[in-house]
Amino acid sequence: MSEAVSYEDLAAIEDDFAEIDDEILRKQYELSKPLFAKRAEAVSKVPHFWPLVMEQAPMEIETFISPQDSAVFGEHLTNLSVTRPEIESATAGNPKSLSIKFEFSANEHFEDEVLEKQFWHRRTADGWTGLVSEPVKVHWKKGKDLTDGLTDASLALFEARKKVGDMKSKAVQEYKALEKKVEHSNGSNTSFFTWFGWVSNRRYVSAEESDKANQEYAQRKEARKRGEKVSAAELEKEIDEGEDEDDDSAVEVHENGDDIAVTIADDIWPNAIKFFVQAQEAEDLSDADMDDLDDAEEGDEEPIDIRSLVQGKEKRSRDSSGPPPAKKAKK
Amino acid sequence: MSEAVSYEDLAAIEDDFAEIDDEILRKQYELSKPLFAKRAEAVSKVPHFWPLVMEQAPMEIETFISPQDSAVFGEHLTNLSVTRPEIESATAGNPKSLSIKFEFSANEHFEDEVLEKQFWHRRTADGWTGLVSEPVKVHWKKGKDLTDGLTDASLALFEARKKVGDMKSKAVQEYKALEKKVEHSNGSNTSFFTWFGWVSNRRYVSAEESDKANQEYAQRKEARKRGEKVSAAELEKEIDEGEDEDDDSAVEVHENGDDIAVTIADDIWPNAIKFFVQAQEAEDLSDADMDDLDDAEEGDEEPIDIRSLVQGKEKRSRDSSGPPPAKKAKK
Repeated sequence: MSEAVSYEDLAAIEDDFAEIDDEILRKQYELSKPLFAKRAEAVSKVPHFWPLVMEQAPMEIETFISPQDSAVFGEHLTNLSVTRPEIESATAGNPKSLSIKFEFSANEHFEDEVLEKQFWHRRTADGWTGLVSEPVKVHWKKGKDLTDGLTDASLALFEARKKVGDMKSKAVQEYKALEKKVEHSNGSNTSFFTWFGWVSNRRYVSAEESDKANQEYAQRKEARKRGEKVSAAELEKEIDEGEDEDDDSAVEVHENGDDIAVTIADDIWPNAIKFFVQAQEAEDLSDADMDDLDDAEEGDEEPIDIRSLVQGKEKRSRDSSGPPPAKKAKK
Repeated sequence: MSEAVSYEDLAAIEDDFAEIDDEILRKQYELSKPLFAKRAEAVSKVPHFWPLVMEQAPMEIETFISPQDSAVFGEHLTNLSVTRPEIESATAGNPKSLSIKFEFSANEHFEDEVLEKQFWHRRTADGWTGLVSEPVKVHWKKGKDLTDGLTDASLALFEARKKVGDMKSKAVQEYKALEKKVEHSNGSNTSFFTWFGWVSNRRYVSAEESDKANQEYAQRKEARKRGEKVSAAELEKEIDEGEDEDDDSAVEVHENGDDIAVTIADDIWPNAIKFFVQAQEAEDLSDADMDDLDDAEEGDEEPIDIRSLVQGKEKRSRDSSGPPPAKKAKK
């Protein structure tokens, strides 16, 4: 134990791990792209594929899906897709930024056939990193807004702040209006669609602010690699994160919008076929066919019996108004 | 919806995703290897690095660590390392097999300086895949066996089965002996060290059996890719998993040994520096310094203040008998 290990040594190692993680994410994205395209082609022919996948959504998401949301997903969700728009090549671009696209058939609640939400992975000068997003305009039909005006009010504040050129402004009248709306709806609004209005767990961070912070961060990282001590002032800057006056939580319309985005991108999206099979099995079980339950829990890779489940057979959706489907025949 | 999607189509897509996952795991392993070596070198100079990391072990593991285990880890764990011994190159070898090595200083419980447990990712003809492991011999000192004979009995059964040439044998006398021991200890043995005796969540699968099953699986996969229909008999073989007579749970000394291995390999191992920092922060907090708690929960990347935490300062371990450390100075 001759020489001590410094903060800079361990932080430099963590920097290098983060770089490898990004490289691996990019590599995986490039490798999987053709296969996701092939899957999209295949599942487009499977009735109710995405509604059945969404039925199996992990708890983090399921908890926000109201019965009304569930009816919309069950009857009208025709496609879901996830891309990583900032990946430029296998070696360049931030792979943590996400774009999540929902496609819908005509329905009673909104006019949109596509609702696409983009999440940008950004950095601030004080060391915070995370996802931020612009509110998405949902064209609600009259009297049919599932979010009770929250997506509209979130977008209105965002636009008002852009107009005054200050994305932190609390002086615009839209701020007070949204604050009141959020306070009022607290605990009572549970529509998943409010998520389309989500901005940040802290506050919005523009691309320009993030680029500047990334440049400074890269310089410190290089300095660390050269073995230079980072000045105390620089470190303080990195450490004193999360100034309170920056906090925008009083006007945030949805909790943990970033976690929802990551769960969709890293769990639902890659594992969609597995969730689909699970949904089918859940329906089999609810048909009072419980005898395979013990077997189904062994091993980490389940044999898939989709033969009886796809091939064009219509599946019932959660609250279909049609006649109940015939019980699936067991060979 | 002109042509139907078959079981074979979706299963073939899942096969291809699994191949990409393996390729990515291998790639990540090769890319990270030099950095893990660098980290090992750095953290070897940080007093109590691995004991502090283990203190932050996720619930799945923590639940199995008894106060006595905790004392052994706290005082005597000098190193931890994870390798993937079946990776041959960036393009070949099963990346899911694991080797987990604990290193210890001289202690009152066992003679071993190294306890290394290997997990092999294997397949059976009926479609089961998962990790299996041989029991590890722990050279317990007299009267100091933390597992009350369970690791020894697990090893004895394994050796006896090897001798009779039947790894499923329930006729050897060591089977009954271990069954009784497991039944007796059920609920009362909670030493983490019992994990070194773990074999499988189902039963042991030899390399030969697994190779044969993998070859058959590869043939079916190729047939699927060529668009051939897999015969019903072949599919049944794949689907009727988990024959009951194969189940060895009555002589399994530890639950979910595979999950523990994966948690160590995929969480503790890559995130060790983060866990170390968390452990330091937890000690800061227990020093009644709670004012940063709110800030610490924002953002997904915490600024790390390890400066005051490393650089050769001795840290207390969980139940150190020495004097308490001086309270860390805050600038």
